[in-house]
This record gives sequence, C-alpha cells and structure tokens, in this order.
Amino acid sequence: MKQHEKTLSEKLIHKGRVITVYQEEVLLPNGKVSTRDIVRHKGACAILATVEDKIIMIKQYRKALDKVIYEIPAGGIEEGEDIALCAKRELNEETGYEAENLQYLAGMVTSPGFCDEVIHVYLAENVKKVIEKAPCDEDEFIEVYLIQQSHVEEMIRSGEIIDAKTICAYSMYKAMRS
Amino acid sequence: MKQHEKTLSEKLIHKGRVITVYQEEVLLPNGKVSTRDIVRHKGACAILATVEDKIIMIKQYRKALDKVIYEIPAGGIEEGEDIALCAKRELNEETGYEAENLQYLAGMVTSPGFCDEVIHVYLAENVKKVIEKAPCDEDEFIEVYLIQQSHVEEMIRSGEIIDAKTICAYSMYKAMRS
Repeated sequence: MKQHEKTLSEKLIHKGRVITVYQEEVLLPNGKVSTRDIVRHKGACAILATVEDKIIMIKQYRKALDKVIYEIPAGGIEEGEDIALCAKRELNEETGYEAENLQYLAGMVTSPGFCDEVIHVYLAENVKKVIEKAPCDEDEFIEVYLIQQSHVEEMIRSGEIIDAKTICAYSMYKAMRS
Repeated sequence: MKQHEKTLSEKLIHKGRVITVYQEEVLLPNGKVSTRDIVRHKGACAILATVEDKIIMIKQYRKALDKVIYEIPAGGIEEGEDIALCAKRELNEETGYEAENLQYLAGMVTSPGFCDEVIHVYLAENVKKVIEKAPCDEDEFIEVYLIQQSHVEEMIRSGEIIDAKTICAYSMYKAMRS
C-alpha cells in the first residue's frame, strides 16, 4: 500500500508571527477520510560554536515551557535569507561571536507528526568575539555561557540540557570527533 | 533582568486531536507587551530498540512534510498512561517487537520556541518478536526495517534520516557505548 495522504480540503485556522496552523481533511491509504492538524513554520537554523574546548550556549526563557532552558544559538530563517548567513547572524545577535567557517551538520525535522519545521544545524569551530554585536530581536532576552565540553555531556546526561537540537548537534559533533 | 513572561491573557485558537493552539498576550521582562502562539501537546515517548547489531526503524508518511521518513517507533502518551508502558506499547503496535528492560535516555523538548512537546526516549536492547502484535492506530500505516548500526550512521550523515528524536536517540546510545 503506497504511503500517501491526499489533501481533500484545507482550512486556515491561525496565521501567527512564527507559525501558521491548518486543518486538513485527508484521504488515507485505506480509503478512509481523516483530519490532520498541520503547523507550518518558516524553518530555522542553529549553530554549535566552539571556543577552544568550550561550547557557546544560551539561556533563554521559553513561554511554551514556562521555563528558562539551555540551547545552542538558533533562530528563524527570514524571507529569502541564505541559511548559512542566518546561522552566522543568529550567532552574532544572540552571543556576540562571529563564525568564519561553517560546517553543515544536519537538517532535522523536530515534530514530523504535526509540524513541518526543519532546523539546519551548523558547526563553527573557534569562533571570535565581534567588536560590534548586532542587537537581539525586540522580544529576546538572552544570557550567554561558555561551557566545557565535558560539562555539556554531564548536563545532557543529568537532564539539565533538554533541547533536542542542542543534544543532536552536540552528539553529532562528538561522533565526528571520535 | 529576571527572565520570565507573565501571561496577561490567553485565547484558545484551536483544539485538535493531537495539538491545542493558544495565543497568549505576555508581559516581557522590559515591560513591553507581546504575543506568543503556543502549541500544546500531550507529550510522547520513543524507543530505540536493538536486535543484535541492528536498530528497529519504521518508515511512515508524515502529512506535515508530505514525505515518507525513517523514525524510531514513537507515539503520544495517552491520558494517565505510564510513560515507560507507553514506549513498550508503541514498540509492540508499530513493529511487533517486545521490550523487557527499558533504559531512560532523555526527555527532550522538540520546538521550545512555540511548543511544549516533550519526547521521552528509551533504549531497549535485544528485543524479541511478539507472538500477537497489537494493532496500529486506525490512521497509521507503517513499514518496519531492521537496519545495521553502521548503516544508520551513514543514513544520518547523508541526510536520509532527518528526524531529530531518532538522531538524538541514536547519538546518545552511541555515546554511551563509546
């Protein structure tokens, strides 16, 4: 049975700043009709940046979780923006560091069951402090930390780091280096 | 500046089967007012299951991506359900394998910028085929594959595996074993 679901109708539920929500009526492979809620997202990039044996991490309040969490720098891709430039821009805005050479680690889907978000993850080794830091978005409040790699591992193991893109990026980086 | 956003008002936008969408008006740390779209999800569990040196993977069509992708078995936690039992149930329903001992790898947030989804990831080594497989959900159509670990790595590197929970789970498993 070919795995596909034909869209029979699509209803726009909500158009927000970050996400757009649709409800689709679909034809399942077995001929039955079902509905799917779909969250559309413009896509994002994230950057694992190293300074000697440290990783640049940010701490940021996330309303959806009502919690401050550790993450690698990341942000939404703007209309027409080059993805690698987006990664560099977010690193600069959020941390005040500048990456010269980026290495593409992975494009990953975060919640394929209901959302089309793809996060493009880059590695930038030995980044430098910028002289003039670009400002953050108006509604962003960020603290920057440089954390020893061994401590990042401990924080993942202990559940202090829970962000999927951060765990993915760090684990892929370590796998490359081992 | 303490990182927190007080909710001033909350509007229910959409109540779906899998997600519920709210728009919140929030007070930022700088005293300004902004809005946040929040997707609420009941949470999920996923299971990295091994059979000798192979990983059990499923191939499933995802409407949000309009694509068939490889993932480890996973599914939503039902009301009041024990999380570890949920992982075992999904493994049985989706693949026909049974796990005796589970090891908790991580609880990870997938899209903290707008969604509260947490996926609890378990490891189950050397799982066995069940005699009576439980049925899948009515709208699930799944193909099961046993894939050599070295090939899983190659698939992550080449971009054939793009699912964040799968990349996380496999990378954490490898890191534990190295």
